[in-house]
Amino acid sequence: MYEKDENFDPLASLVADLRSDLDATSKTILDQANSTLAPRIGDVSAHLFKAGGKRIRPVLTLSAAAVLGYRGGLHIQAAAAVEFIHMATLLHDDVVDESDQRRQRPTANLLWDNRSSILVGDFLLARALQLMVELGSRKVLESLSSAAVAIAEGEILQLSMARNLSIDEKSYRKIIEGKTSALFAAAAESGGAVGGADSEILSALRKFGHALGISFQIVDDVLDYGGDSASMGKNVGDDFRDRKVTLPVIGAVANASEEERRFWSRVIVNGEQRDGDFEYAKELLRKHGSIDKARQEAERWSAVAQDSLEILPDHPIRGKLADLTRYVTERAA
Amino acid sequence: MYEKDENFDPLASLVADLRSDLDATSKTILDQANSTLAPRIGDVSAHLFKAGGKRIRPVLTLSAAAVLGYRGGLHIQAAAAVEFIHMATLLHDDVVDESDQRRQRPTANLLWDNRSSILVGDFLLARALQLMVELGSRKVLESLSSAAVAIAEGEILQLSMARNLSIDEKSYRKIIEGKTSALFAAAAESGGAVGGADSEILSALRKFGHALGISFQIVDDVLDYGGDSASMGKNVGDDFRDRKVTLPVIGAVANASEEERRFWSRVIVNGEQRDGDFEYAKELLRKHGSIDKARQEAERWSAVAQDSLEILPDHPIRGKLADLTRYVTERAA
Repeated sequence: MYEKDENFDPLASLVADLRSDLDATSKTILDQANSTLAPRIGDVSAHLFKAGGKRIRPVLTLSAAAVLGYRGGLHIQAAAAVEFIHMATLLHDDVVDESDQRRQRPTANLLWDNRSSILVGDFLLARALQLMVELGSRKVLESLSSAAVAIAEGEILQLSMARNLSIDEKSYRKIIEGKTSALFAAAAESGGAVGGADSEILSALRKFGHALGISFQIVDDVLDYGGDSASMGKNVGDDFRDRKVTLPVIGAVANASEEERRFWSRVIVNGEQRDGDFEYAKELLRKHGSIDKARQEAERWSAVAQDSLEILPDHPIRGKLADLTRYVTERAA
Repeated sequence: MYEKDENFDPLASLVADLRSDLDATSKTILDQANSTLAPRIGDVSAHLFKAGGKRIRPVLTLSAAAVLGYRGGLHIQAAAAVEFIHMATLLHDDVVDESDQRRQRPTANLLWDNRSSILVGDFLLARALQLMVELGSRKVLESLSSAAVAIAEGEILQLSMARNLSIDEKSYRKIIEGKTSALFAAAAESGGAVGGADSEILSALRKFGHALGISFQIVDDVLDYGGDSASMGKNVGDDFRDRKVTLPVIGAVANASEEERRFWSRVIVNGEQRDGDFEYAKELLRKHGSIDKARQEAERWSAVAQDSLEILPDHPIRGKLADLTRYVTERAA
């Protein structure tokens, strides 16, 4: 376990280094997530985008291009396409999960309606595709189209496994590889492809994004059982209320007594949740050490991510990407 | 107005001519709309695809390639990508419209749930993209990605204009150009691109698909006020119940007496619909001649479509495409 240092924030440092690229990416996003024909597209997209977020995916794309010394402008378009795919999944996820809050603000499906969220999500996915086609890199197209397929597969797998206590670590991994890792991997790889990386570097960037994505999602799932809502932009307890079986729960269920199993069955399978249940669930996670176990798993993946960076060209941004792998797990410390 | 001939069915004739290509397209669709990771994807897709349908979009793609004498295999993939985009919009439309029937069968959102329809739609859109990337034609990518953007724009425009009696013919046209024409145009153009068409032929194919799509959608909207449910695969009266302002209604509202205006306002704007309202609405459409006027508009667009075919190489399929433009409007006769 690393020592926690409040001033250690490599993501903020990367954002500062990439400031002009990120500003250009934001401009492209706001310009392109728009339609003179249907102004609601711009309204919904701007609401979602301006709510903020870590922008970690475009940071990965821009960082990969930077490490490779890329000097053109296509990395901006690639980063915007990556963020569009992410935004589309957020809009659709909020409908699927019937969420009413994201980053302390009402969701688009609440402010407008489910229909608008579905159709604006479709628009953003199609616009991402247009940006990729315009960009003209077959590798970027292959990478991001595979990611879009994997995201949908992961989400559907999650859906068909929801409320099911027999989910094991293997199934959980498949879900998060789809819903999170795939786009992290494609984001890093796309930046590399734009930057002219050879296949060895591309594969390292992919592996880096994949491992970082797993670590990131495990930590997100841990934070859902205890982090501070404001810092993470989601609401603590959401997964519990949505009856999602995430890694911390899997660990606690595996070691549950008969009485504890009845509890999990009532709150997750039957969805009968009462006051105090969430607190009791957290107590069970602590009791069985499944939060610590999940954190260790996240750290293991962060180490894989860090190792993958070794063959990349020496560059200050590379060092910060290495720091980022540690930072991701420290969010949960 | 043409004479109606019950034996005149150029779509069936095209389907017969293209039988082996269409079978290969269906096979590609069923093979690709699948995931070992999430079997629900294959279940939902097969349910939707096997319900049937006119397959008019893949027929356009395959026909364009055939007219150009194309002998390779990529037109199959292009046709499958086109149908995937269409299937994705059907799944999302049924959620947006809260439909429970399509082609006399329960919709996927009813059999499974809205979540599955949203996410499987996303999967099919992403898979369409993968097929296009694999196919490797920049023109096909450009054409279909623009169509995907236009479809979403048209649907959102329709959404923001629903239940609004001030929609005029111009807005109506913009809606159907997006939600229907764009994919018809891209379907025909993609077949041409695969077949190696020059830019003049591509532009003619685009124009053909665009005009045919407008005609097709106007006729669909006319049939919603009187066709026979089994033959068209949708439920008569759906648009009325969904309070959509289509061309036949626009004509009747434009010429409405004060009392009739109050009727339209009650049923479309306020959504207070009672027994007998649909019959009265149909009576008003007849009274103001707006069904005939809509049919004439459809025939005008069919003629544009037919004219666009003239510069195409002489080929039996070209003749049948010309017949198809007439057939589309005769559905409404």
